[in-house]
Amino acid sequence: MAAKKGRTASRGPARRPAPATRAGIRVGVVGWGTIGSGVIRFLRESNEHLSSRLGAPIELARVADLDLKRKRAVRVPKSLLTKDARSILTDPKIDVVVELMGGLEPARTFVLEAIRHGKDVVTANKALLAHHGAEIFAAAEEVGVGVGFEASVGGGIPIIRTLREGISPDEHEAVFGIVNGTANYILSTMASEGLGFSEVLAAAQASGLAEADPTYDVDGIDSAHKLALLAQLAFGVALPLDAIHTEGIRDVDRVDMAYAKELGYVIKLLAVAKRDGKEVEARVHPTMIPATDPLGIVDGAYNAVCVHSRGLERTMYYGQGAGMMPTAAAVVSDVLDVARDRLGQGGPRLAPLGYPIARQTAARVRPIGAIESDYYLRIMVRDEAGVLGKVAGHLGRSGISIASVVQRERAARGAVPVVIRTHATREKDLRRSLDRVAALPAVKGRPVAIRIEETPG
Amino acid sequence: MAAKKGRTASRGPARRPAPATRAGIRVGVVGWGTIGSGVIRFLRESNEHLSSRLGAPIELARVADLDLKRKRAVRVPKSLLTKDARSILTDPKIDVVVELMGGLEPARTFVLEAIRHGKDVVTANKALLAHHGAEIFAAAEEVGVGVGFEASVGGGIPIIRTLREGISPDEHEAVFGIVNGTANYILSTMASEGLGFSEVLAAAQASGLAEADPTYDVDGIDSAHKLALLAQLAFGVALPLDAIHTEGIRDVDRVDMAYAKELGYVIKLLAVAKRDGKEVEARVHPTMIPATDPLGIVDGAYNAVCVHSRGLERTMYYGQGAGMMPTAAAVVSDVLDVARDRLGQGGPRLAPLGYPIARQTAARVRPIGAIESDYYLRIMVRDEAGVLGKVAGHLGRSGISIASVVQRERAARGAVPVVIRTHATREKDLRRSLDRVAALPAVKGRPVAIRIEETPG
Repeated sequence: MAAKKGRTASRGPARRPAPATRAGIRVGVVGWGTIGSGVIRFLRESNEHLSSRLGAPIELARVADLDLKRKRAVRVPKSLLTKDARSILTDPKIDVVVELMGGLEPARTFVLEAIRHGKDVVTANKALLAHHGAEIFAAAEEVGVGVGFEASVGGGIPIIRTLREGISPDEHEAVFGIVNGTANYILSTMASEGLGFSEVLAAAQASGLAEADPTYDVDGIDSAHKLALLAQLAFGVALPLDAIHTEGIRDVDRVDMAYAKELGYVIKLLAVAKRDGKEVEARVHPTMIPATDPLGIVDGAYNAVCVHSRGLERTMYYGQGAGMMPTAAAVVSDVLDVARDRLGQGGPRLAPLGYPIARQTAARVRPIGAIESDYYLRIMVRDEAGVLGKVAGHLGRSGISIASVVQRERAARGAVPVVIRTHATREKDLRRSLDRVAALPAVKGRPVAIRIEETPG
Repeated sequence: MAAKKGRTASRGPARRPAPATRAGIRVGVVGWGTIGSGVIRFLRESNEHLSSRLGAPIELARVADLDLKRKRAVRVPKSLLTKDARSILTDPKIDVVVELMGGLEPARTFVLEAIRHGKDVVTANKALLAHHGAEIFAAAEEVGVGVGFEASVGGGIPIIRTLREGISPDEHEAVFGIVNGTANYILSTMASEGLGFSEVLAAAQASGLAEADPTYDVDGIDSAHKLALLAQLAFGVALPLDAIHTEGIRDVDRVDMAYAKELGYVIKLLAVAKRDGKEVEARVHPTMIPATDPLGIVDGAYNAVCVHSRGLERTMYYGQGAGMMPTAAAVVSDVLDVARDRLGQGGPRLAPLGYPIARQTAARVRPIGAIESDYYLRIMVRDEAGVLGKVAGHLGRSGISIASVVQRERAARGAVPVVIRTHATREKDLRRSLDRVAALPAVKGRPVAIRIEETPG
């Protein structure tokens, strides 16, 4: 029951050295890529500031990477370098292990080994935590060490610690946001330049803003990983990845971008989790939000997360979604956080999620068909009298209430777009109705449907 | 040197009861107004959630107010009520004192007395902390108790804890924001309705959105109080209130609102603190910012604070600036924060400001005349040939570089506005030059000058 006491009692063979024997904190970095270089730069160039904030010296003790020859943004003395990550995980002189390898294995094995050796762990690896968080958090609680993962969601935005601690006394109804910088950059550029998805993606890949394999970013998988973490923190529930309805941005059409703009909206890849009583909904998909919404102005590589809470109502946290120094700053803030606890007299004062993992309940996830939302619909129809009436009639008979219709310029080959904004509609009803509409002889192609979040939460 | 150790060593006669003897946390509330009612509601209605987050029971033990008869949003059992605040401050059974009286005295005396009796203190009183923070923080460090003041800036926005802890490892270059909801509501309404200051203020007073005496809000004093706290947290410097250049919004003219809109800007009451080497600038004044800036969309009663940091670059924190439940949620988050430390084995793991008050340096504040900024100028001139050239010539000879000029419609009595946007100009040079321009026979009235923050920070 008592978070602190529970952890203390179950600590088992605590391998953490007694704090009184420690003159400072020694940090080992496993994985020397871009973020690793930023962390190393921080620990070295801001060492005096960090030590003064911590109240004790902090030291970069060791850096492991399989490839030590590659050119990097910072230099590290040879004496600190190793190809053998395990030598860091087991080194009794190292207090905090920073895992920046990415991927599931061997990251999982390494993190668990570091925990078993009494190290605090800091990681930016959202995929790892989305898949194996429960195992890692339970292991950390068992041993009594800290796990920091501020850099795993929203790059430099301090949203993890805010949910875990700052606003945790409040009861949250929704957490949602723009949490993938690459997808947001592509959508922002499509909107501002009037270009199509493939063009913008190709340009972003050429300039290094998108990965050669952009699947995780543009198909919403990375956003789903982050949403799983946010929902666990906000609602105290376990959220398996496959319970998150996930759609990417490949099918976002520039035509709909233009209509969205005309209607006062923007299209964003939103990750949304809401709690309604005992049920949770969790989904990642392209979403229309008002252009004047605080989330609507989050452009380019910026990220933002909104939280709706009982007391606080809406709060929003905005910042760089990625990048070497913003992400490294988040990693270093975690290092100081676990170091503060280590220098104190007990174990971590908070469990990795802010509550003991044993108290986490299984989420009862609402199926996507049962979710209600306003919809933007674009239906291409033959340019004939009476077609609009037929389409509207079909929708109406399925109980779908139409808020507004726009029918505009004549398009090529006699097909014109009918743009409809619905009132709140159950997804299952909408899909069934659109199937019927699509079968009408006057309708050409698949109707487009994009969810609208008017006042999210 | 070591924050933790320094505090432990100097704790003196620690009156804090040994944590092992405590089964839970007992809270006393001093001052039962709107926020107090919210806090009481939280502690009672969300008690189970709060206790589970804390890992120990938390209990509303006592409520003090001089007027116990007034009608309020919540009921409190008579047995908990008292008119004698001192009976709370000295009660050995009470752990945390929540000060919600407001004002400087007796709030200062009461808070110091609570600290001397080993209580943690939580307060929403920015005026108190802006004036007497150093004394209160030093007393708290001496005794080894916590002081929480999350609710003092930005209502429900968790900006205090974020600066004190979350992003404190980073080095901050600027902190600035919209931190007064009343002023922001008035400016937002002036902009959206095209009304003048006095009209909007009168309506806001009539509907209870502005105080009968709105001085603190509309003259920037409340914003200056909050800026003093933000700068202390962000830069580690003491910032006396009289070192903050403070201008309010009474003189903001709807004409300039309209021009701002035309130029793509909005006028906001901004509190700005920047660090440049060893020098700090701190100022509160109406400011033009791009309408598309994240701060530009902060409307109505919302507040937002931006921080520019070495690693994180720009982050922004957005939420309700005031209101019963948002502010109460911030108070309750502080109660849990100090309670966590109290239930742990030591004193607070962080000093009230995140660093020992003894390490705070005196700010070397840059005089307002030495500050550089872009300017919006509106100069009313006689509608005659050559006047614009004369005005521009005078500005140019003072070294003021003009970015753009708008000269538009003919106004009443032959006076027309010349609207000028300058490049970066030293305030002293601008003022001297405007004095000369104002003396020109063709110029009518005082030129209007509004600072522009293009990319704040």
